[in-house]
Amino acid sequence: MNKNLILIQCNDKVGLVALIARVLTNHNLNITAMREFVDEVENQFFARIECIGSSFNENNLLAELSSDLPDSARISINPKSSKRIAVLVTKEYHCLGDALIRNHFRTLDAEICCVAGNYDTLKDITTRFDIPFYHVSHENKTKQEFETELKEVLNKKNPDYIVLAKFMRILSPEFIADFEGKIINIHHSFLPAFIGASPYRRAFERGVKLIGATAHFVTNDLDEGPIIVQQTIPVNHTFSVSDMVVAGKEIEKSVLSKAMQLVFQDRVFRSGNKTIIFE
Amino acid sequence: MNKNLILIQCNDKVGLVALIARVLTNHNLNITAMREFVDEVENQFFARIECIGSSFNENNLLAELSSDLPDSARISINPKSSKRIAVLVTKEYHCLGDALIRNHFRTLDAEICCVAGNYDTLKDITTRFDIPFYHVSHENKTKQEFETELKEVLNKKNPDYIVLAKFMRILSPEFIADFEGKIINIHHSFLPAFIGASPYRRAFERGVKLIGATAHFVTNDLDEGPIIVQQTIPVNHTFSVSDMVVAGKEIEKSVLSKAMQLVFQDRVFRSGNKTIIFE
Amino acid sequence: MNKNLILIQCNDKVGLVALIARVLTNHNLNITAMREFVDEVENQFFARIECIGSSFNENNLLAELSSDLPDSARISINPKSSKRIAVLVTKEYHCLGDALIRNHFRTLDAEICCVAGNYDTLKDITTRFDIPFYHVSHENKTKQEFETELKEVLNKKNPDYIVLAKFMRILSPEFIADFEGKIINIHHSFLPAFIGASPYRRAFERGVKLIGATAHFVTNDLDEGPIIVQQTIPVNHTFSVSDMVVAGKEIEKSVLSKAMQLVFQDRVFRSGNKTIIFE
Amino acid sequence: MNKNLILIQCNDKVGLVALIARVLTNHNLNITAMREFVDEVENQFFARIECIGSSFNENNLLAELSSDLPDSARISINPKSSKRIAVLVTKEYHCLGDALIRNHFRTLDAEICCVAGNYDTLKDITTRFDIPFYHVSHENKTKQEFETELKEVLNKKNPDYIVLAKFMRILSPEFIADFEGKIINIHHSFLPAFIGASPYRRAFERGVKLIGATAHFVTNDLDEGPIIVQQTIPVNHTFSVSDMVVAGKEIEKSVLSKAMQLVFQDRVFRSGNKTIIFE
Repeated sequence: MNKNLILIQCNDKVGLVALIARVLTNHNLNITAMREFVDEVENQFFARIECIGSSFNENNLLAELSSDLPDSARISINPKSSKRIAVLVTKEYHCLGDALIRNHFRTLDAEICCVAGNYDTLKDITTRFDIPFYHVSHENKTKQEFETELKEVLNKKNPDYIVLAKFMRILSPEFIADFEGKIINIHHSFLPAFIGASPYRRAFERGVKLIGATAHFVTNDLDEGPIIVQQTIPVNHTFSVSDMVVAGKEIEKSVLSKAMQLVFQDRVFRSGNKTIIFE
Repeated sequence: MNKNLILIQCNDKVGLVALIARVLTNHNLNITAMREFVDEVENQFFARIECIGSSFNENNLLAELSSDLPDSARISINPKSSKRIAVLVTKEYHCLGDALIRNHFRTLDAEICCVAGNYDTLKDITTRFDIPFYHVSHENKTKQEFETELKEVLNKKNPDYIVLAKFMRILSPEFIADFEGKIINIHHSFLPAFIGASPYRRAFERGVKLIGATAHFVTNDLDEGPIIVQQTIPVNHTFSVSDMVVAGKEIEKSVLSKAMQLVFQDRVFRSGNKTIIFE
Repeated sequence: MNKNLILIQCNDKVGLVALIARVLTNHNLNITAMREFVDEVENQFFARIECIGSSFNENNLLAELSSDLPDSARISINPKSSKRIAVLVTKEYHCLGDALIRNHFRTLDAEICCVAGNYDTLKDITTRFDIPFYHVSHENKTKQEFETELKEVLNKKNPDYIVLAKFMRILSPEFIADFEGKIINIHHSFLPAFIGASPYRRAFERGVKLIGATAHFVTNDLDEGPIIVQQTIPVNHTFSVSDMVVAGKEIEKSVLSKAMQLVFQDRVFRSGNKTIIFE
Repeated sequence: MNKNLILIQCNDKVGLVALIARVLTNHNLNITAMREFVDEVENQFFARIECIGSSFNENNLLAELSSDLPDSARISINPKSSKRIAVLVTKEYHCLGDALIRNHFRTLDAEICCVAGNYDTLKDITTRFDIPFYHVSHENKTKQEFETELKEVLNKKNPDYIVLAKFMRILSPEFIADFEGKIINIHHSFLPAFIGASPYRRAFERGVKLIGATAHFVTNDLDEGPIIVQQTIPVNHTFSVSDMVVAGKEIEKSVLSKAMQLVFQDRVFRSGNKTIIFE
């Protein structure tokens, strides 16, 4: 008996759980774990269903679900289990290093197909793991020229997701639109506190007693996209800005890693500007 | 449309989610939230279902579920929403005080019907909230005599649950059997570390860097019952035993309070010596 | 041998630790614990010294320290150990209830001399603990009239600190100036996120994965005063606004309680808009 | 002006802080940060002093401190700032991988001089970072033979510390004696819970709601050495043993990394079977 994964997002209406359960039974699928949620603000229904069965036809199942569920339904049956990802970086190594190690030992739930950096600082560490590194400098280029080059690299690789692992350039709406819903960023603060540049400096100046990190999908609004994972750690008056930077790297790494795991295991849905996460 | 809550525990078999969904649909009940889990070690299926509907007959629904589900099924439809609880104490006020405040403002998800103590230290605080306090001294009595007196008090009140809020007497197997599955205890360590007496002293002597608290159901084996909630907080070399006691009270209070909330909201199932918790 | 506590804040200069140690030795005081810190931004030196000795004259010690330390030095020898506090409330009981319980059992490191509320909702719970409650309504009054009445109550009691335990009125700069550095507030967000009104609603709308609470000294700038304690807890997509409010109360209570403990034990110094805390 | 670090451990007596401050002043050293602690159980005084000054003679300072402090005093002036470490591993990569990345970017506060494994599983990842890997198999050898080989490797490298990064062999008292106080281990439980083998399986069977990791110095008593860092994370009924293993790796990595940082920055003292840590 095979394990199957079915993801459903649609407008909410009465009786969806029973409806879905009935259809799966018709196709000889036995539900072993089911998570569902209704976002009442967005009137959206979300379900993540693990079920066992091997004698069903995916096309027929998809057809029947599509026919019975509301028109707008987005249904995914057995999405590909190992995503291809491209990682964008600047100079900081900690998030990339962690991802490279996990990738090397095949525990990333994804495969890093390339790393691209606007500096070549992290070329050495990347190539030690036999991953191609593309140096796409932003210097002496318009944003458009820079992003065109970057897109050439990315389009060749056709990644399922783009992970901004401390990539310190702001991407244009056009770039983001090209990869809508596929870009994950790690921001070095507890959003919405300290949106934008130098969050640790501002945290220091404000005298906060916790610092945070936020992984989120990237949208046109800077640091305003749907939040996936957040974490905070204590700091105190003895922390200089650079102490905060050092301490913060630990949670940035941890938060981005957790967000990648959740997204790549198909546990994250988007609902308006929020995420629904079935852990 | 009324909100209904249905709890099911039974031997696992293929198709239970679909079966239950079908029966509820037959009774015009629309599932709005469903949590289920299969404990493969115990081969037990657990479900907590919130559903909307008002035109159904509880007896008929119970009959149909009982008929369709495995023989051993335990089914509860709309369990009473406010439990009656008795609180047993010794001398420490922090857990009782917190429960009294919540009870007073009706946010305990339960009603404290009485407090009983083997000392009368906490009589004053209890009666300030118009809750009856019973002083059942253990002094100059056998354990059997003491527990007989205690049971007289409790049986008069007929509580749904007995909460040991830092009650420092070990109860006999006979007493526990009389209230099987209904006794919640707070232990002042991160079990199974420091089972038994003086956990903070032993934590101090071991030089641990975290101390913990554990809320659990009481069984015959001291501190070995199913764990409901656990929490830890950091300590360091500057903490004396009494500093740990003071710091520990905060998590004891918090852990017991959380455990009561989960149990009283019918979110906790027992599976062998573990708990299944649908938060 | 008596335990003594000495607090020093002054402009920083070379050799302060040695200087202070020498003076204390001259007065037959043996340092058992010493915490010091230099805030380089403010060029301020802070020290909290526990020392043992009984054959010294406090006036002489103060005179010698004042003479040897920089002109601006603020020196406190054995500050009074139990502060008198007034608590201001509106309708929410959780922070007040916790403080009343601790006060009743003398573990607050302070004594609540009165509670004042702009509603009389919490009069009952307050008077159950034999603490005077003053109902100072804000209705049909200018802010100035309201605050004048409030000050009359407070001035009669002459509290060392005023604790805003979910007091939902914004105080005027004049009021704050009258009690400069003596007002502690609990704000129901992780500042500087969600400054101002309805932080939980805004947290819900933003889709954050943690909610927080912040205890801070009150200054003229709303929610911008020096932060004393902050804490966060996880939330997820299943939390409604009111679920967040309920969950948030737990950390509001915990954070305010911890802040009071630190301030009342003379562990908190102010340095510009930050706090230096010797835990 | 140079920054200097002075570490002192000695029997406690009256006036040590003042005595030390006086001696440092005599040598033109200005204390910028001082942490001290008295372990009353062991009657030991500990101090970690950062001070500025360049016109002093280390030998003279050491001589004067040694002469003035109690006979047993252990004094260290400017201990070497980058330690040499050897890492012992078996098959699990996560702790080693993290250390290799940090080492490569020189943020480990130490230099990995070699990795030795009783399997060669981690040879590839080690050599990708140009670090020598020694495969010292335990198979078909007595423990003594195995450890003799291991010691040959280690003695050649003369490390300051040996880090057991998921090294799954129990070392003999003789081996441990040879590297007394220099061996750091990561244990995959919240000690003293689940001492010994298979802690995650036992955590699963006990139904705990938190799992933990402990970094400690290795002594002759299995998992009983002085604890340096501990951390816990929540788990729930949905976690299988292998889910716990996966989740646990994150805190094992984090806890070992934090412990190494503290030890290598000379922030950790041993006092009996405990640690004193000046963070």
